[in-house]
Amino acid sequence: MQSAQPNGTSLSHAPDGTSHAIPTAAQTAAHFAEITLLAAGRPVVVVQGLGFVGSAVAAVIADARDGVGKPRWFVIGVDRATPGSWWKIALINEGRAPIASPDPEFDRLVARGVLQRRNLFATASEEAYALAEVIVVDVHLDVLDRCVTVPDAIELNLAGFEAAVRAVGRHMRGDALVLVETTVPIGTCERSVLPALQSERLARGISEPLQLAHAYERVMPGPRYIDSIRRFWRSFSAIDAASAVRAKEFLATFIDQEFAPVELADTASTELAKLLENSYRAANIAFIHEWTLLAEKIGINLWAVVDSIRVRKGTHDNLRYPGFGVGGYCLTKDSLLAQWSATQLCKTNVLAVTLEALRINHDMPLHTLDLVRELAGGSISGLRLLVCGISYLPNVADTRNSPTELFVDASTAEGADVTVHDPCVRQWPERPAVRLSVDLHKALHCSDAIVFAVPHNTYKQLAPSDFPGARAIIDANNVLNDSAARSLHAAGSRLAGVGKGHWRKAGYHLKR
Amino acid sequence: MQSAQPNGTSLSHAPDGTSHAIPTAAQTAAHFAEITLLAAGRPVVVVQGLGFVGSAVAAVIADARDGVGKPRWFVIGVDRATPGSWWKIALINEGRAPIASPDPEFDRLVARGVLQRRNLFATASEEAYALAEVIVVDVHLDVLDRCVTVPDAIELNLAGFEAAVRAVGRHMRGDALVLVETTVPIGTCERSVLPALQSERLARGISEPLQLAHAYERVMPGPRYIDSIRRFWRSFSAIDAASAVRAKEFLATFIDQEFAPVELADTASTELAKLLENSYRAANIAFIHEWTLLAEKIGINLWAVVDSIRVRKGTHDNLRYPGFGVGGYCLTKDSLLAQWSATQLCKTNVLAVTLEALRINHDMPLHTLDLVRELAGGSISGLRLLVCGISYLPNVADTRNSPTELFVDASTAEGADVTVHDPCVRQWPERPAVRLSVDLHKALHCSDAIVFAVPHNTYKQLAPSDFPGARAIIDANNVLNDSAARSLHAAGSRLAGVGKGHWRKAGYHLKR
Repeated sequence: MQSAQPNGTSLSHAPDGTSHAIPTAAQTAAHFAEITLLAAGRPVVVVQGLGFVGSAVAAVIADARDGVGKPRWFVIGVDRATPGSWWKIALINEGRAPIASPDPEFDRLVARGVLQRRNLFATASEEAYALAEVIVVDVHLDVLDRCVTVPDAIELNLAGFEAAVRAVGRHMRGDALVLVETTVPIGTCERSVLPALQSERLARGISEPLQLAHAYERVMPGPRYIDSIRRFWRSFSAIDAASAVRAKEFLATFIDQEFAPVELADTASTELAKLLENSYRAANIAFIHEWTLLAEKIGINLWAVVDSIRVRKGTHDNLRYPGFGVGGYCLTKDSLLAQWSATQLCKTNVLAVTLEALRINHDMPLHTLDLVRELAGGSISGLRLLVCGISYLPNVADTRNSPTELFVDASTAEGADVTVHDPCVRQWPERPAVRLSVDLHKALHCSDAIVFAVPHNTYKQLAPSDFPGARAIIDANNVLNDSAARSLHAAGSRLAGVGKGHWRKAGYHLKR
Repeated sequence: MQSAQPNGTSLSHAPDGTSHAIPTAAQTAAHFAEITLLAAGRPVVVVQGLGFVGSAVAAVIADARDGVGKPRWFVIGVDRATPGSWWKIALINEGRAPIASPDPEFDRLVARGVLQRRNLFATASEEAYALAEVIVVDVHLDVLDRCVTVPDAIELNLAGFEAAVRAVGRHMRGDALVLVETTVPIGTCERSVLPALQSERLARGISEPLQLAHAYERVMPGPRYIDSIRRFWRSFSAIDAASAVRAKEFLATFIDQEFAPVELADTASTELAKLLENSYRAANIAFIHEWTLLAEKIGINLWAVVDSIRVRKGTHDNLRYPGFGVGGYCLTKDSLLAQWSATQLCKTNVLAVTLEALRINHDMPLHTLDLVRELAGGSISGLRLLVCGISYLPNVADTRNSPTELFVDASTAEGADVTVHDPCVRQWPERPAVRLSVDLHKALHCSDAIVFAVPHNTYKQLAPSDFPGARAIIDANNVLNDSAARSLHAAGSRLAGVGKGHWRKAGYHLKR
């Protein structure tokens, strides 16, 4: 998201369409001097990395109050003055949440911290670390290719993460606590973060014991975005008892008391725990996909079956539903971090089911493509195909690793004329060349086949009369109920649905 | 469990050690005539099959009351007068539950029904079906070999089930409801039960519409055995609307109102649902086993990690713990029924992860054997090996498909001198030749290596002083806490634990 301004400086473009001039080093330094004055004499927390996690964590910490109701912390968010990141800093300093969210609390917290309480700011200056009592690390540590599931071929982008950690080490106070929230391979805090910080500190002559802890986040962008930090369970661990005490005290300043953090024995345990819990979720999704294929062939409504089983609270109420695919930042990569760790630490390849689940999930949208192809009579070449839904969660504008990517790539490769629509998405950064319609009703009328990939409310509220006659409609996420399906078939459309074997049994995939 | 009496009649031996003479046909007929007199004018339910499910279901139905507090049903349990089954009939007619259970309610219900209220009896007479308003089918439908996971090689023992259904058809009233509770392959009610009953009824000149429904059970032998019928969710389905109404009304007579049954569209849906929910549980166990192996290698306490994740109610609170293996009647076979159905109905082999999970679970005890072999220095030939725990659940006397079978078979094959112990098990019908000790403390002293396979309370209550010095102790199910492990290692024992990587990290597997 970079472009040149007339005067030669660069712009950073935010997803909301606004553009922000990237400052010079002198401008950054001047702005940071202002922040330093405001911070003087106050306990400072610096949050490193202002993405989906860091920006929300910064807002929550800034909103924490002490015993007499005053702001507990002065919070500085740090990110880079690059075209891809500067806009986050710029938006926060305008009092706006950098991530569009269905949780209005995020916007409120940022506005309150920046504009009213004046204890929340963002900067690109690494000098900020020097002010901090606590430094929270929320920078990314990503895999290079999420399609790879061969253990030895998994590659990580460690360099960015390690550089960020070293920047902390170059500036941090000797007595500061470093709290890593980033999802990292098992062993990272002990084997990578600890020595990197120690070497930078030693180079500066700091001999105090380092205080280092790991407390992974469970942030969920969605209607309970802020509560997923403030009112949600945490696990933490530390490299020694003193760090554990500091971490526990710090977490207690912004996490509600009833969600008392659970301490694990070592940082490897919490690192593994995060990868395990997301892999568990991913494996449960892959499991139900197998049964989805079976239910469709046998003629069973798997949605109803899953509903009937989920009444078993505590053992089966997290059974997943059929669907289009799996997206987002975590579930598509954390199993790869785990296998990468297993390879590095013990040359073992035990996560076979875990990796197979990831592969199943990655390929899942191709099943919906099979249904499209079937309804289209075998070939989708030249088919005007509308894909409804890009974000990986309903009613959320998060396009990261959307399963729609693979679906659009594959259907385009087969010659389909693809248009996408998403009520929450105005631009699709991962696929800027794909035609994005903003007029759903027009798009519905100009398509031969319509795929509902995401159960956005906008789609669930469509009436049968919104559909022009005689189309192929493929419902990959239970957007249409049985009554709508019956009407649409009666009106000449053919339908197929993921997990909706009963539609097939009723002949909805055939011409009426 | 058969032996000849001096007078030539056969005996049927119950698991509690009692023996029961199998009656002649004349004796059976005479006893059934008595039951018929008692049943005269009363609404009768017949339960076919008096195993873990049928005997408890019969007891619960017999305990149901009508609006004025009188017994709602006269209940007759039917099983066969064979050495393997007659004892169940004999025990019930003595007022005793045929299954030893930690739930005292089961014994109470049987005693009350048989001895006080006189509305619960058992017989080997198939004539009983002729008396019934409702016939509940609880006979087994098993796979021939649970070790087979190659789709085309899965074989079922359908003959016994089909013969039982035909017996119902030969005797049932034209207006009776047949409610199948047996876990069956998908499509069985429509493709097998329905035509079998119809053909027997037609041969008898019955032309009324058949009333047939499926309502699978979720019985759990254990401390809440009876509540798992009376106070637990049910799903049901039927072949037509009239049957559905009858099934719903019947279930409401003995299932507590707050657990209103969920109706699904067709019998294939409930048949699939049962297989799905048990396969889900099995897959979740297989998933955690992969991470168990990883955690052990890395040196992590996976038990603590799982505890820390299970705080996430509704999404992660059913994450399974590490363990010794999977046993019992259902989780070891239901995925095979599902794949058999898929092969029969649609020649499809989509349940790859599901079947792989079953294979992982089946082989799981071999990992504990790996730990034994490691502590024994590479070979277990000649090792005096004590295996503590046979039943597949703690504090329950259920030895069906116990994972201890494979463990004992494999360790015996490697030359170990194996003794087993289980506080709940006095005989092990599946492995009668294996030495079973009833004196735990003597057995602990006479062993070189001790495996805790099942977390029975008896084992959890052992103190470090109960162990003689310098043994190899392998804890496969979190029987020993860390403090006990520390003491035992200090006293000269070597220890390993499934999922207990922290013990390995601490060197407990090494000589002190």
